[in-house]
Amino acid sequence: RALDLDLGSSTQTSHRLLAYSDALLSIIATVMILPVAHTKIHPDQKLGESVQQLLLTKIAVYLMTFLIVTVAWAAHVRLFQVIELIDDVLALLNLACMMIITFLPYTFSLMASFPEVPFGIFLFSVCAVVIGLIQAVIVVYGFYHPHLLNQQIQVSENQNFYKRHILKIILRGPILCFLAAIFSFFFIPLSYILLGLVIVFPHLSRFITWCKTKILGQRNEEEEHHSLETFSFYLSEPLSKERVEAFSDGVYAIVATLLILDICEDNVPDPREVREKFHESLLEALSEYGPNYLAYFGSFVTIGLLWFVHHSLFLYVTKATRLMGLLNILSLAFIGGLPLAYQLTSEFAEKSHNEIEAIQVSCVITFFASMFQFAIWTTALLHERETLHPFARYGGKEHAFMFAKLALYPCVSLGAFFLTCLLSEFSTEIFHLMQIVIPFAFLALRIFVRISLTLIKSVMSFSRRKVV
Amino acid sequence: RALDLDLGSSTQTSHRLLAYSDALLSIIATVMILPVAHTKIHPDQKLGESVQQLLLTKIAVYLMTFLIVTVAWAAHVRLFQVIELIDDVLALLNLACMMIITFLPYTFSLMASFPEVPFGIFLFSVCAVVIGLIQAVIVVYGFYHPHLLNQQIQVSENQNFYKRHILKIILRGPILCFLAAIFSFFFIPLSYILLGLVIVFPHLSRFITWCKTKILGQRNEEEEHHSLETFSFYLSEPLSKERVEAFSDGVYAIVATLLILDICEDNVPDPREVREKFHESLLEALSEYGPNYLAYFGSFVTIGLLWFVHHSLFLYVTKATRLMGLLNILSLAFIGGLPLAYQLTSEFAEKSHNEIEAIQVSCVITFFASMFQFAIWTTALLHERETLHPFARYGGKEHAFMFAKLALYPCVSLGAFFLTCLLSEFSTEIFHLMQIVIPFAFLALRIFVRISLTLIKSVMSFSRRKVV
Repeated sequence: RALDLDLGSSTQTSHRLLAYSDALLSIIATVMILPVAHTKIHPDQKLGESVQQLLLTKIAVYLMTFLIVTVAWAAHVRLFQVIELIDDVLALLNLACMMIITFLPYTFSLMASFPEVPFGIFLFSVCAVVIGLIQAVIVVYGFYHPHLLNQQIQVSENQNFYKRHILKIILRGPILCFLAAIFSFFFIPLSYILLGLVIVFPHLSRFITWCKTKILGQRNEEEEHHSLETFSFYLSEPLSKERVEAFSDGVYAIVATLLILDICEDNVPDPREVREKFHESLLEALSEYGPNYLAYFGSFVTIGLLWFVHHSLFLYVTKATRLMGLLNILSLAFIGGLPLAYQLTSEFAEKSHNEIEAIQVSCVITFFASMFQFAIWTTALLHERETLHPFARYGGKEHAFMFAKLALYPCVSLGAFFLTCLLSEFSTEIFHLMQIVIPFAFLALRIFVRISLTLIKSVMSFSRRKVV
Repeated sequence: RALDLDLGSSTQTSHRLLAYSDALLSIIATVMILPVAHTKIHPDQKLGESVQQLLLTKIAVYLMTFLIVTVAWAAHVRLFQVIELIDDVLALLNLACMMIITFLPYTFSLMASFPEVPFGIFLFSVCAVVIGLIQAVIVVYGFYHPHLLNQQIQVSENQNFYKRHILKIILRGPILCFLAAIFSFFFIPLSYILLGLVIVFPHLSRFITWCKTKILGQRNEEEEHHSLETFSFYLSEPLSKERVEAFSDGVYAIVATLLILDICEDNVPDPREVREKFHESLLEALSEYGPNYLAYFGSFVTIGLLWFVHHSLFLYVTKATRLMGLLNILSLAFIGGLPLAYQLTSEFAEKSHNEIEAIQVSCVITFFASMFQFAIWTTALLHERETLHPFARYGGKEHAFMFAKLALYPCVSLGAFFLTCLLSEFSTEIFHLMQIVIPFAFLALRIFVRISLTLIKSVMSFSRRKVV
């Protein structure tokens, strides 16, 4: 430590560096929806076919980017749970790491456009290996300057053990990628399988351990748990709640702002057209875009309220387990699809026969996004003593209201979906008006929950009195 | 308060709501550079003319959006320095406010395309008035539930005075906009002047007060200061340091990620072209894009390092004064222009005679962005006892190094600019290579500063010995 002070490298808290990394990673994960949303679909084509033909590769790029970036993000969270303080060198190394991660979407674009050429997968693997190496350098640097480490690891006796373990976790993905790079020149399908492994590996290994303990009984796990107690506390607990929130906020924020970009690029009328077609009346020209404005406000309200539900949920979550983190990421992947829903419902409004299909796609996206939020809540309830604030547990004063909040969007989107099947008159206008009205439902909900709770209580006390 | 608990509205910390608002506002402020950067310029045109003709309105939209959003952001910061806790109603009101703010860029696009039609300015003014009204509702709601307020205001006796004052600050802009909306139908130039006033008003009023105290002497100010002591502590101190950092992080993050979008949309070769033109060799097709990759990495490094400088600076800043906030926003406005610089240097590489001009524009943008950062530092040094950590003050152990860090980018960009004037051989490749090499300069800098400090010390002690 004396040496380090001699070198004059000033130690800093990592808070802002992590916030910046979270912002970068969440934006890069989500922004690849733009090429999907901007795909021009000819109005005469049926949406069903064109989705299959045109959008499939782009959606694949979006999903692959999203999942790989979240894996990289999870590794980053782990890494900086071990290294708690930073200095200038670590900050620069982290920025270098971010630079390579933001380049990943391009390699996916190459892969999706040329699936049978090995170069795309080779380039991706090289990037992944470089990221792994930089992170390994960060770990080695951190353990070489122990005052940067987590307090608990700093005082522990087997620092070397920690170091080897964290290196193993960080280099696991890059080694698989390295193999994928080699195989890409001989047998491409194997490379794709290896890359798929990178994404599922953390969850797979967790699942295998879980199965093992179920089959071999509790004893084995307890033994293991005992020897690595403090250790597993830091490394198996994958996600700090603040960083889950920061990452989610980034996704919600970028999705909400991508919408206005489209409005600004597509819905400003051409001055010449206004002069010739609308006799210099700007208002008349703008009234053509009415449905787009409605679509914009409807989509923004949906995104804003889904954020609001997420925010309310995480107010009462005290600890984010690994499964909750996974469900959150799945929810966010669908949230990222909302600009596509906006584009479909505003582009196809009135123009083609695909209106109903567009609304159905929107409903499906909203349904899954909100359903995975609901699943986070259900998972939290399973271990409510560890993961939930007393207010939100069974019988807590906010429990019923939280349930209602989380159930609202799945119900509404399911309802809208069935309405599209039943009513042939259902249009995008009605759909967007529905979206805009929902916030008032939130306020009504609180009153409704309150009344029904009072009713239940009075009925209960009434029946009890009867029994007595 | 008892009533409030009865209603069951759960009080929450506002931390995450503010972080989300900061993310939304910073993205919306910056994202309008995309239409500027995506303007297609014909390779045969001279850049000088086309910049003037094509880009001017779009750049105006970008700058107006950026400045107005920062004004709205500053008002938002003030507001939530008074209201420290939130509940569901406030969260929903805040989201409604954000929705209208994100719609503002569209009204600017209308204004820029149809400067002589009153509708654009009318729409903008209506939005601004609605924002003001929502914020006023937030204030009234907050003062109606005093437990949500700042502790110091909560215990103070003249709450009504605070309420009136904060309402005055918040409604000042909207009232000017309301006037602008009315005048837009009679005399449009006056409306534009009124809108300009909204942006400069806070700084103007500050400047006038400052002049007054300089002319009338210190006594008057002291008197005023005494009567409103705790009050001015909260309302004249405009910006909490965390929110300045969060807003800046958002801008840097979105700028860094906009680059990869362009790469993914423009630089993936067409499969048919590869088959016909490059005989199925993907590598050959990609080698055409070599300069683009170089431009991408060069630009990312520049943005990353400017963030790093900002981060290092704010580590040692203990308080962000109003002037520092203004300088920071000016610096961020130029940072937001970096995607344009990227587009110019990568698009024009080798294709036209405008290469040198493109590099010069990049240098100018980088120079001003880093120069305003330097100005923040100079301003902080003027009141170093209040605004800087002891390490960074004159004679502090990090002072010289911080100076070198902040001076690096202004010097490099100025140097590059003069090189373009002197050398006709200077190309975008060399420019981007320069950008990529700079991080190593950062590491070399620390060693250089250390050596020169040691040299100065030894020379000083040598000369002192001579004197003795």
